[in-house]
Amino acid sequence: MADQPELTIQGWGPPPSGGSTDAAGPPALEEALPKAARRHLAKELGWTPRHTPPVPVADIRLTPPRLPEATLAALTALLGEDNVRTDREARLLRAGGKSYLDLLRRRAGDASDAPDAVVLPGTTEETAALLALCSEHDVVVVPFGGGTSVVGGLAGVDPDDRPAVALDLRRMASVQAIDVPSSMVTVGPGMRGPQLEAALAAEGLTFGHLPQSWEFATLGGYAATRSSGQASTGVGRFDDLVAGLTLATPSGVLEVGHPPASAAGPDLLGLALGSEGTLGVITELTLRVRPKPATTSYEGWSFRTWAAGLAALQRLARHDLLPDVVRLSDVDETRANLLMSAGTGARLLRGMLRGRGHGEGCLLVVGWEGLPDIVRARTRAASSLLRAGGGIRLGHQVGESWRKHRFGAPYTRDTLLDSGLMVETLETAASWSALPTVYDAVGRALRASLTAGGRRPLVMTHLSHGYPTGASLYFTVLADRDDELPIQQWLGAKRAATDALLAAGGTLTHHHAVGADHRPWLDREIGALGVEVLRAVKARLDPKGICNPGVLLPD
Amino acid sequence: MADQPELTIQGWGPPPSGGSTDAAGPPALEEALPKAARRHLAKELGWTPRHTPPVPVADIRLTPPRLPEATLAALTALLGEDNVRTDREARLLRAGGKSYLDLLRRRAGDASDAPDAVVLPGTTEETAALLALCSEHDVVVVPFGGGTSVVGGLAGVDPDDRPAVALDLRRMASVQAIDVPSSMVTVGPGMRGPQLEAALAAEGLTFGHLPQSWEFATLGGYAATRSSGQASTGVGRFDDLVAGLTLATPSGVLEVGHPPASAAGPDLLGLALGSEGTLGVITELTLRVRPKPATTSYEGWSFRTWAAGLAALQRLARHDLLPDVVRLSDVDETRANLLMSAGTGARLLRGMLRGRGHGEGCLLVVGWEGLPDIVRARTRAASSLLRAGGGIRLGHQVGESWRKHRFGAPYTRDTLLDSGLMVETLETAASWSALPTVYDAVGRALRASLTAGGRRPLVMTHLSHGYPTGASLYFTVLADRDDELPIQQWLGAKRAATDALLAAGGTLTHHHAVGADHRPWLDREIGALGVEVLRAVKARLDPKGICNPGVLLPD
Repeated sequence: MADQPELTIQGWGPPPSGGSTDAAGPPALEEALPKAARRHLAKELGWTPRHTPPVPVADIRLTPPRLPEATLAALTALLGEDNVRTDREARLLRAGGKSYLDLLRRRAGDASDAPDAVVLPGTTEETAALLALCSEHDVVVVPFGGGTSVVGGLAGVDPDDRPAVALDLRRMASVQAIDVPSSMVTVGPGMRGPQLEAALAAEGLTFGHLPQSWEFATLGGYAATRSSGQASTGVGRFDDLVAGLTLATPSGVLEVGHPPASAAGPDLLGLALGSEGTLGVITELTLRVRPKPATTSYEGWSFRTWAAGLAALQRLARHDLLPDVVRLSDVDETRANLLMSAGTGARLLRGMLRGRGHGEGCLLVVGWEGLPDIVRARTRAASSLLRAGGGIRLGHQVGESWRKHRFGAPYTRDTLLDSGLMVETLETAASWSALPTVYDAVGRALRASLTAGGRRPLVMTHLSHGYPTGASLYFTVLADRDDELPIQQWLGAKRAATDALLAAGGTLTHHHAVGADHRPWLDREIGALGVEVLRAVKARLDPKGICNPGVLLPD
Repeated sequence: MADQPELTIQGWGPPPSGGSTDAAGPPALEEALPKAARRHLAKELGWTPRHTPPVPVADIRLTPPRLPEATLAALTALLGEDNVRTDREARLLRAGGKSYLDLLRRRAGDASDAPDAVVLPGTTEETAALLALCSEHDVVVVPFGGGTSVVGGLAGVDPDDRPAVALDLRRMASVQAIDVPSSMVTVGPGMRGPQLEAALAAEGLTFGHLPQSWEFATLGGYAATRSSGQASTGVGRFDDLVAGLTLATPSGVLEVGHPPASAAGPDLLGLALGSEGTLGVITELTLRVRPKPATTSYEGWSFRTWAAGLAALQRLARHDLLPDVVRLSDVDETRANLLMSAGTGARLLRGMLRGRGHGEGCLLVVGWEGLPDIVRARTRAASSLLRAGGGIRLGHQVGESWRKHRFGAPYTRDTLLDSGLMVETLETAASWSALPTVYDAVGRALRASLTAGGRRPLVMTHLSHGYPTGASLYFTVLADRDDELPIQQWLGAKRAATDALLAAGGTLTHHHAVGADHRPWLDREIGALGVEVLRAVKARLDPKGICNPGVLLPD
């Protein structure tokens, strides 16, 4: 594990390959953004760049650990001394996730939400024993994979304010079996995507789940949060790719899922997926893999308007012709993306778009993967529909450029946070019919909430995953940060956007999960009786309520 | 509803288009089976055809209705007099389903498991009120759609022996909304497949779920049992096609599912699907539909051995090249199918197979549907893999012949039951790796159990649905019926087969559901703790345990 990159305590960290030479901090604004992009932002937001670095890590405040001696002794007896840690660094590194609110707190020097200890079980049996022990000792357990949650999934908040441990999954991070004929692999939950892909490559296989957090997030985390990745339109959401899993709970161990499919009653696998640590800890996963694609082809298209782009994608969806990767940016995101791309290529592209009347157009990135003949037939059929819908093909360079920068945004965020900006994202999904209304309502709500005293937000949106029945929308919001009340500034905007998207028919979250941030709205999503059903399941598996009590279920 | 065909009380009924001219009974053996097939069966089974008709319908014994006057009055006050029925015919028509055990009982004149009354609510609200009322009056409720269950899903058995009503869904059987851009349709649970297809055809759409029970089964029933259809390899299992549903329970109404996808916690839709009436009654469904395919192409292939056919299909699955319909018959089923097909075409086919060394081969039927260019590319790629795996292409006639007879088997069963035969099916699914072992184990168990005193069973198997990770197996079993102890004869075989398939890694059921017949094994499928989770959900939604207590959960 030693050679894997780690997230920093106060941000995503410096990018792995260059940019800044100072390993202690992100690149400066001048390095991260071309001049045109900086000017555009300053004008759009009413913002003047300023240096707002985080407090030094040494100054971050931590509450003294609260685990009673007897509990600590029992944990050590179970796991061994090396696997129970109470040192400052171990606790700081498991304090919350990487949402804007998390980063605001850590940057301001507040880690009062850090766990009292970090425990590292090595097997399903040890995890089950640990949960029983914590149940007995009234200790809250927060599973910790990659620490990449952006919805407060690692809040560790307990209504009874009991001591809490972070259950780090990194000791359960190996490939346990590969069943090549059945295209399945069994892995530990602490494994990350890059490790898995390396193990599969030796067999000519790939998993293909590629969210923006891919370098750091764990497979167990994907399962617990119903993640989706950039190629999920083609390969499926993470929950579609789980064939089975083992869930250790305070009441015992559940093994759920029976590949390839079963009609033996309600789907318990679907109950474990998305449970966000509230029912127990996922200790093993069997995942569906596939042969490494013989062909991959990424390309860019342009549409004159967002509405035209949406209509064209809806037609692809209807005819089962959606590409494996599909991302349609609105006018604001397209403009920002073009400004971010410096160099001759970008200048030529801008010229070409202007020349064809798409100067203020919407960029579409599509990616195709698979057998050459099939990819060819699908691309041809889809291209003809895109063209009929007013699309202009921009070629492979645009697609490859997106691919190259696909994991970049969270690194850039650090730089923007250091420059006096608020930066956050939110996402939803809706049916094709409801999508335009959801898009309008969220943009309007964010702008209304964040426009004040000369400040104006920039709201950039893309459609990020397509389905036969609808698609997801991903919103990126930038604004001049209110340094007096930065948390309130964002909470107000988030509340307005969430109310708006639910009212318009969107779902509370398409792939970031509920966490602490969305739980006040869960009953609007699934109804009061739906919440009661989840509570009944939790009461059976976790009667003392020690499993991640701060997330998912409303207070 | 009056013009829809209805199942008969003692069987599936005479085929809709000819065969027998006597509407009161199935065709005679000589009409239903060619001579060669009759001879083959007699030899294989050690069976002499004999006439074993059911008792006359008028002689079927029914217990007097047990609903207290006050309950009947309350039901009538709620639903109106027309929608509460206690007459003999109404009760007989809702007595159990259409499994071999059901038919044995009904043919012997036993309908002691018939409901005490039939109630017909018209809306979600009426259904919820009805469930609350039955909860209060301690009356068991068994939802009744098409009555086609083959696993005792309509058992109505209650450990406390309370009175029971069949809740017939036929008044909730209309299309409520079609959202064409989002490819979704909202329907009542009592609607049948043919009705739905007729409504969709007007919009150029199709649903495409085609199980053998298609003429009679209801959409609500498919959802409650996690059905799959003959084209499910391509269009998806029924549970994949449900975007959302409404479940009326004794504790209130749940609305679950948020299309196109959501990460807002555990999947409550997956908990309602497959709940078999034990949590409440599905009163509305939103289903995913698709454009009517521009091309459909069905064809036959032959493989020399079952193992070669399996290996070829596994390779298709691995490369995402499985056809929309895929059915590989083993040697025994292929032989029987060829004997069943009379005429010149069949003779020519047999000659051709013998000529190419596939005389004892395995027949594969594949079906492709979709856009012409895509179908062409997929067919070409798949055909090349099938050929590389030793397959011989037999052409379209074989495929079309299968298509023509796709709903025929249950009609033929009536004739065979009238001729002294035991006829039953069972099914499972397993990973590609486990499939050969499951196939061998089930066949061996059935043969061991059913071979006695000169009797030998004929076990015919086909792979009926393919997935990337595995496939389902469907077994048809024929034997000379033990007229002294016919129920015990089958129960012994079923027990042996189920134990064997679970031990070999198969699932308890791939698409027939648990019902009464499989529930003793549910804890082997999902574990004791899994059963406890389902009980906790049921206790929350159905605290009095009135919802279909005879199925799914073990006693």
